[in-house]
Amino acid sequence: MLNFSINKNFFLHALTITKRAISHKNAIPILSTVKIEVSQEGMTLIGSNGQISIENFISVKDENAGLLVNEIGGILLEATFFINVVSSLPDVTLDFKEIEQKQVVLVSGKSEITLKGKDIDQYPRIQEVAPTTPLTLPTSLLKEVINQTAFAASTQESRPILTGVHFVLTDNQQLKAVATDSHRMSQKKLSLEQNGDNFDVVIPSRSLREFTAVFTDDIESVDIFFANNQLLFKSENISFYTRLLEGNYPDTDRLIPRDFSSVVTFDTDNLRHSMERARLLSNATQNGTVKLEIAKGIVSAHVNSPEVGRVNEEIDTETISGNDLTISFNPTYLIEALKAIDSEKVTISFISAVRPFTLVPSEDEENFIQLITPVRTN
Amino acid sequence: MLNFSINKNFFLHALTITKRAISHKNAIPILSTVKIEVSQEGMTLIGSNGQISIENFISVKDENAGLLVNEIGGILLEATFFINVVSSLPDVTLDFKEIEQKQVVLVSGKSEITLKGKDIDQYPRIQEVAPTTPLTLPTSLLKEVINQTAFAASTQESRPILTGVHFVLTDNQQLKAVATDSHRMSQKKLSLEQNGDNFDVVIPSRSLREFTAVFTDDIESVDIFFANNQLLFKSENISFYTRLLEGNYPDTDRLIPRDFSSVVTFDTDNLRHSMERARLLSNATQNGTVKLEIAKGIVSAHVNSPEVGRVNEEIDTETISGNDLTISFNPTYLIEALKAIDSEKVTISFISAVRPFTLVPSEDEENFIQLITPVRTN
Repeated sequence: MLNFSINKNFFLHALTITKRAISHKNAIPILSTVKIEVSQEGMTLIGSNGQISIENFISVKDENAGLLVNEIGGILLEATFFINVVSSLPDVTLDFKEIEQKQVVLVSGKSEITLKGKDIDQYPRIQEVAPTTPLTLPTSLLKEVINQTAFAASTQESRPILTGVHFVLTDNQQLKAVATDSHRMSQKKLSLEQNGDNFDVVIPSRSLREFTAVFTDDIESVDIFFANNQLLFKSENISFYTRLLEGNYPDTDRLIPRDFSSVVTFDTDNLRHSMERARLLSNATQNGTVKLEIAKGIVSAHVNSPEVGRVNEEIDTETISGNDLTISFNPTYLIEALKAIDSEKVTISFISAVRPFTLVPSEDEENFIQLITPVRTN
Repeated sequence: MLNFSINKNFFLHALTITKRAISHKNAIPILSTVKIEVSQEGMTLIGSNGQISIENFISVKDENAGLLVNEIGGILLEATFFINVVSSLPDVTLDFKEIEQKQVVLVSGKSEITLKGKDIDQYPRIQEVAPTTPLTLPTSLLKEVINQTAFAASTQESRPILTGVHFVLTDNQQLKAVATDSHRMSQKKLSLEQNGDNFDVVIPSRSLREFTAVFTDDIESVDIFFANNQLLFKSENISFYTRLLEGNYPDTDRLIPRDFSSVVTFDTDNLRHSMERARLLSNATQNGTVKLEIAKGIVSAHVNSPEVGRVNEEIDTETISGNDLTISFNPTYLIEALKAIDSEKVTISFISAVRPFTLVPSEDEENFIQLITPVRTN
């Protein structure tokens, strides 16, 4: 029966990562447990919510883990509760020993805690992806692409495909990631340094957000494996599986406008702060919009809430060209778009009061474009 | 009409302090506003929830405030919203100007925000305490007394008087503060350095918690004024009013036992961590208790939850004397009691399994005593 000892803090950290795939109140109760499997090579911690699954491997060779396997085996333990118990233990190491009837005894210092577990056979088969040639990406690059797109995905289930981010690799090297909730869109392009097999997948944005939390900055690169309706992000010790969304992603290329009537370059932070002030009052208006006015070389923002008050302010610009224009939109979309832009300056291009406008950063302007649809106010 | 300019961050900080007395959803809608009154001497910010009221004065002489009064006056503004607006302003200063119909215009940098206010006459009369000779205490001392007692007050309204802390001054110098929720009790005594008029009041523990948040550590001393059913804590710029609880506080002196059968001294943190482990499992038991066992010079803690598991652990002791004993109690009461103790060591004295036990710190043991009532488990 299962018997090992391990460094408490190392174990706790690994459990906490695995826990990200585990939801306390799952419709399938067994998925609220963490699966602990120990072989002579090391320990695998497994958590899953049916959509994403995380496998976390701790090698006996990892000196920081201090993992000493006395007897191999496996058990399921209520994840949240088990993590709280491990975290409360007094000593730097803990001894973990299975006794009769799927009970485990944790001994740490003078503390002895007995917990009831479940038979490992009750755990469902976790997602599997057949080994193929992976695409390898720097973790920081993949996380940047996710941070620039995933926020624009829909959070509503009325069109499930829009809750994902569309990742496409063409010509073995050209990566495109795009997300839209039909009010705004964000698209990032990237030319990869190494070749890969072409793919076309829609990854749930929720999975991508968990991925960015699980793959910390100390993990330099990530291998990506594709299967039919699954995807696996893999580092040396962590395997992160996610289901893919099925269905055809809409053609977003045709949405991107080319000819503009007015083009303005702003300081990114300055514009965002202006929109944050505007939002305080637009939240109290009926259509929740801010009005942006370009007139005689001056850009200004206006909100008028009959109940609360009004904002009028001039926004500093870097350059401005084209026609005068008045356009209304939800300031939250612009705030979120600006937050995704690292660059100090941002260029916004307008066609008319009723057509979407585009945002591109002053650096990397070829590869990162966002679209926001205005609101007709009268 | 009201017209001033002020340093934005200084104003924001003062508003945030005043806001602690303001609840967003008050049964009396006008109390969700902050009252701004400006005279030639400075500005008074007033907030109240009917139970506590805070008056915060900003002098024109305070250089950090940068307060410049152009015209005196007053206005009421929705507190939460106004604070958000001020916090969003772009410049280091803001100009505040009342225009027609109780509207105010805030100008900061290129931003101009107009807000609708209310007539100052709509604000109720705030609490008042006639000037008498105050009792002056070091703020840190008063906050220590509060932190050592207020947590033990009841949070239930079934016996309203127990939701307060009983403060008594006798012999013009002997201060006693005591709180109990009838399951546990905490009593702190103090000999004051200066004389004061005797008093006997019950202060709502909720007011005391707000007091500790409002009177930050840079405020060295606080003047305490008493009125019939009110109390005023006053520093140079802040007046904090609270209603007092009416009724007779129970006689707690007779509850404190004198003769004990077993006395054990523990390391405070060590005992607390042990109880925190025990609580993880006692939460899953029917009566929620931990069993403490003193046997043959060894103290141990035990919880047995038929559903989740069990804890058994030996607790290190410093000294131990008297009879063997087994006693059960809610570990949360002991955890909270230990958190209130600064001292490295704590002495717990028992009479029997059905009588309350006492905790005293190894330092200041004469003046700080806590009581916890055990639970009969069979």
